[in-house]
Amino acid sequence: MALELYDLAGADPDLRFSPYCWRTKMALKHKGLAFEGLPWRFTEKERLANSGQGRVPVLRDGATIVHDSWAIADYLDRAYPDHPMLMVDAAARASALFLQSWSDRAVLAALRPIAVKAVLNVVANEDRAYFEESRAKGLGAPIEAFCSPEAVAQGYRDLEAALKPLERVLSDHAYLGGERPFYGDYIVFGSLMWPRIVVPGFALPAGPQTIAWFDRLEGLFNGYAGSAPRVAAAA
Amino acid sequence: MALELYDLAGADPDLRFSPYCWRTKMALKHKGLAFEGLPWRFTEKERLANSGQGRVPVLRDGATIVHDSWAIADYLDRAYPDHPMLMVDAAARASALFLQSWSDRAVLAALRPIAVKAVLNVVANEDRAYFEESRAKGLGAPIEAFCSPEAVAQGYRDLEAALKPLERVLSDHAYLGGERPFYGDYIVFGSLMWPRIVVPGFALPAGPQTIAWFDRLEGLFNGYAGSAPRVAAAA
Repeated sequence: MALELYDLAGADPDLRFSPYCWRTKMALKHKGLAFEGLPWRFTEKERLANSGQGRVPVLRDGATIVHDSWAIADYLDRAYPDHPMLMVDAAARASALFLQSWSDRAVLAALRPIAVKAVLNVVANEDRAYFEESRAKGLGAPIEAFCSPEAVAQGYRDLEAALKPLERVLSDHAYLGGERPFYGDYIVFGSLMWPRIVVPGFALPAGPQTIAWFDRLEGLFNGYAGSAPRVAAAA
Repeated sequence: MALELYDLAGADPDLRFSPYCWRTKMALKHKGLAFEGLPWRFTEKERLANSGQGRVPVLRDGATIVHDSWAIADYLDRAYPDHPMLMVDAAARASALFLQSWSDRAVLAALRPIAVKAVLNVVANEDRAYFEESRAKGLGAPIEAFCSPEAVAQGYRDLEAALKPLERVLSDHAYLGGERPFYGDYIVFGSLMWPRIVVPGFALPAGPQTIAWFDRLEGLFNGYAGSAPRVAAAA
């Protein structure tokens, strides 16, 4: 039986924009594992009850339920060691873990003012009040204020600064994993899929090598991420 | 014949505090290569003339002269592939290169207000005017102003924030390289040896796992870095 992934969706069930779910979807593709991505909305907490918490991604593999994108990556390598490894050894795992800790602080923090308001435009009706309230609480300000034009402009400047370390690496190597992508690539890439899906006409404020790397990842697995439905730019 | 490393020194020729030279010294130790660390002062540009530039580290290996700590690490793995590798493959090289790009921006930038004035206290007399002038130009302000008590306090806060991604990695792994140290460890560690040597009583503003990792690196190669002369804290 195929694996099942609870994957955050907007009002349009095909609009999948969670940065953490993108990490997991790329990981499943890398492992070559078939999976069904079940659309899930913020307020459907009871559907995740058997994971013991209320956030996605949640992976169901037969009788096994795993939540948290990092725990899922570890699980997939442990449960499917004969499939391509996301992290081939302790060195790769340490490298991916550093990229995650760095990315969650530097990249996701910069993306928040850029992407949160755009999410509000695409969430399901039943999620809207929950999203507004939970984000206002988490961000310390109502979404409108947190995502003011000034904050968005600062977000793009912060994102450009945050992404700078990538450029030098990607001048010498095709992937953060060297010759081949590894889970660390999917962590950073997955973060950037968030605005890519929800912000109309989003352009990566980065150097040419970083942009080429992003395109390369969009093209992996027969263009899996690159062909994902996203909010269209205004004509 | 042993390799020769031009290594930045203070008025006391045994006081070696360059973060870039520390990266190279740890790299040479890792490779198990004997080397002589020649004390070099900022103003002795003519001694580096055969490297085609004026900064250290510069490595002389017989007829081969290599400058720039990253180029030296690459050279050592290429020239001595039968010695322990600093970067075992393209994945390790990409990981180390990311750590360098990140570290040079986040860690060294935070360290500057903390360490630059302390360097002024230890440089050789003949270097003093050069150091004051070149740093004022590079930093955009005289050293006294750039290293004001407020700037130092901010530097410690920035350093604490910059080092946070390390803590999670080092909770699961002994080194950034996983089970064994690799060049990426030496890059970050070398940066932190700068204040460790010149700032009396310097304490790392970091979590327990990061501090344990720093101690572990000081202990490598029979306590090579840990036993290096440093400026004593006031009694």
